[in-house]
Amino acid sequence: MSNLSSSVGIVTPQHADFATPLPLNSGHVLASYRLTFETYGTLNAARSNGILICHALSGHHHVAGRYSADDKAAGWWDNMVGPGKPIDTNRFFVVGVNNLGGCHGSSGPSSIDPDCGQPWGSRFPVVTVPDWVTAQARLADRLGIDRWAAVIGGSLGGMQALQWSIDYPERIAHALVIASAPKLSAQNIAFNDVARQAIITDPDFLGGDFYAHGTIPRRGLRLARMLGHITYLSDDGMGEKFGRMLRSGEYQFGYDVEFEIESYLRYQGDKFSDYFDANTYLLMTKALDYFDPAKDYGGDLVAALKKASASFLVASFTSDWRFSPERSRETVKALIAAGKRVSYGEIESVHGHDAFLMTDQPYVDLMQAYLDRVAEEVNA
Amino acid sequence: MSNLSSSVGIVTPQHADFATPLPLNSGHVLASYRLTFETYGTLNAARSNGILICHALSGHHHVAGRYSADDKAAGWWDNMVGPGKPIDTNRFFVVGVNNLGGCHGSSGPSSIDPDCGQPWGSRFPVVTVPDWVTAQARLADRLGIDRWAAVIGGSLGGMQALQWSIDYPERIAHALVIASAPKLSAQNIAFNDVARQAIITDPDFLGGDFYAHGTIPRRGLRLARMLGHITYLSDDGMGEKFGRMLRSGEYQFGYDVEFEIESYLRYQGDKFSDYFDANTYLLMTKALDYFDPAKDYGGDLVAALKKASASFLVASFTSDWRFSPERSRETVKALIAAGKRVSYGEIESVHGHDAFLMTDQPYVDLMQAYLDRVAEEVNA
Repeated sequence: MSNLSSSVGIVTPQHADFATPLPLNSGHVLASYRLTFETYGTLNAARSNGILICHALSGHHHVAGRYSADDKAAGWWDNMVGPGKPIDTNRFFVVGVNNLGGCHGSSGPSSIDPDCGQPWGSRFPVVTVPDWVTAQARLADRLGIDRWAAVIGGSLGGMQALQWSIDYPERIAHALVIASAPKLSAQNIAFNDVARQAIITDPDFLGGDFYAHGTIPRRGLRLARMLGHITYLSDDGMGEKFGRMLRSGEYQFGYDVEFEIESYLRYQGDKFSDYFDANTYLLMTKALDYFDPAKDYGGDLVAALKKASASFLVASFTSDWRFSPERSRETVKALIAAGKRVSYGEIESVHGHDAFLMTDQPYVDLMQAYLDRVAEEVNA
Repeated sequence: MSNLSSSVGIVTPQHADFATPLPLNSGHVLASYRLTFETYGTLNAARSNGILICHALSGHHHVAGRYSADDKAAGWWDNMVGPGKPIDTNRFFVVGVNNLGGCHGSSGPSSIDPDCGQPWGSRFPVVTVPDWVTAQARLADRLGIDRWAAVIGGSLGGMQALQWSIDYPERIAHALVIASAPKLSAQNIAFNDVARQAIITDPDFLGGDFYAHGTIPRRGLRLARMLGHITYLSDDGMGEKFGRMLRSGEYQFGYDVEFEIESYLRYQGDKFSDYFDANTYLLMTKALDYFDPAKDYGGDLVAALKKASASFLVASFTSDWRFSPERSRETVKALIAAGKRVSYGEIESVHGHDAFLMTDQPYVDLMQAYLDRVAEEVNA
């Protein structure tokens, strides 16, 4: 499925600059900002076939395709988005957007604050899932899309899809909420805080204003990513892939890489620290921590979802312990109690939280079946 | 149960210095070494009522009692060890020992290398569970104990109890292996490696020889402990205790403590970094990683356990995901297949891995019942 023949091909990111101030949940106001995005497929005459893809912690707008013929890596959801794929670019106009606070072109801590010509750094305000949804709605306006056929996301992306259904009920026909949760547990927050403390206490972080000093808090980012990776994989999946395999066949009795799993994690951490912005990492984890649509409704998720009018697909993966099936079932139960149309798929997978990015066949089949129905509605 | 009236009272640590070289699994030889230990209760005339308590990652020899009348903290297992308690000091002679490589009085990285008069630091060799058991056997010799009535430990301590049954079958009547595992999984090793990398990449670690420079790798130790704590508690237990409780009642939209769980973890991390030695932390996690008694038997745990002659109590806790009940059942199955006497208790608890240090009543009852039987045998 993910061969190049079914790719959206060569793609180019676009930018949308907004001059209308954006008031944020925190009380801060962004006077102006840029969103970087990509689109695949063609918007139909009725402008009714738009699908918004919301990204997770380390994601971005580059969802599918490649930037050049010899680009080695395709977009992060290229296995799911393309001609003939479940999110079918022959039928849908697909939009990927880098969220505010990101580090891939949209306004964020590493971008230039127009007020002073320096990187925002620590002065970039904390943004929340509702803030992102507001910004995404303005992008929809710019693209002439009154109503999305679907808003789709996994993990933190699923939270945005759920928030869309609450904040703009009339502007979203379907919300696909994958491997997500209605709010983080204490354990989820705890893992995030360890990652944040790793970054913040890195001497090269310099209070978040490291850009001017030519440093990067690589040690902290590396640890954050190593830890993150453990929580993305399942215990069983890690066991199957790495087990207790040794790098050199025998115990070395030292602190260099001994087990293959150490080698894998350190490599992932090193790679990540080369390209990801430390402030964006902090900000994305805070958006996760703060997400709690029931909060304004006295903790009542059913009440929060009452005004939603979208149909929902909620999906979870059996071995996902970061956002376990139990958490998705909380969302499903609240949606049912609120009288909404909801389909739920609990998919057998060994891939843990990462499964939402993979191609376990039952998952692909579920997405395909659901989106076939969405496509039929669009063309009805 | 844990009131002072049933305490062993005021206790004093003792030291045993050994001049006979100790060959280690790594190939290194410790020319001489010191073990710091404590004893409670009285060794009977037959010298048959000795119980050895083996400690876990951050434990030590101070198992029960207090160092002075106004000592605020009792030993780490004071709820389980004392007159009338499950490990009853009216009936047993209980020995707690700080393992080699520790930082509480026994020879370790922070102790003085007699060869050069400086702290061992990075030159202290990596030690393993079998090395510890050998050193503990020499301490038993020194105390005149040919055979332990029981060797008891939780977590890494349970691994030592299991190793005793294999290495000195004739010297141990009962092995109590609590909240432990026959070897670490890839996920277990992964968590350990993140903790180690946090310490090793702390600029104040200085390759392990920070003592001479007057620095302490506090940042790394703090992160290691924060992460450790998450894995000691259960998701549900953390949820019950902290949930999404906010420090100040409302979102602050910043990076200071926001949720109570963050406050708890950071406090635990800070406290730990004040007193625990970074090199000992590294060394203890490596001992965990390397533990694999089946390794010398082609991966066959049943074969490894064949020569054991002890009786076994294996216990696990339902919400422990660091060493889940499934891991204890692996040990139980191998013991049964090897034809050994084994009792197994899977205890309902919300306390996660930490449950082995707590007083869930079914756990206390199980220990009491099993050790009553051990006491009867001693007096038979």
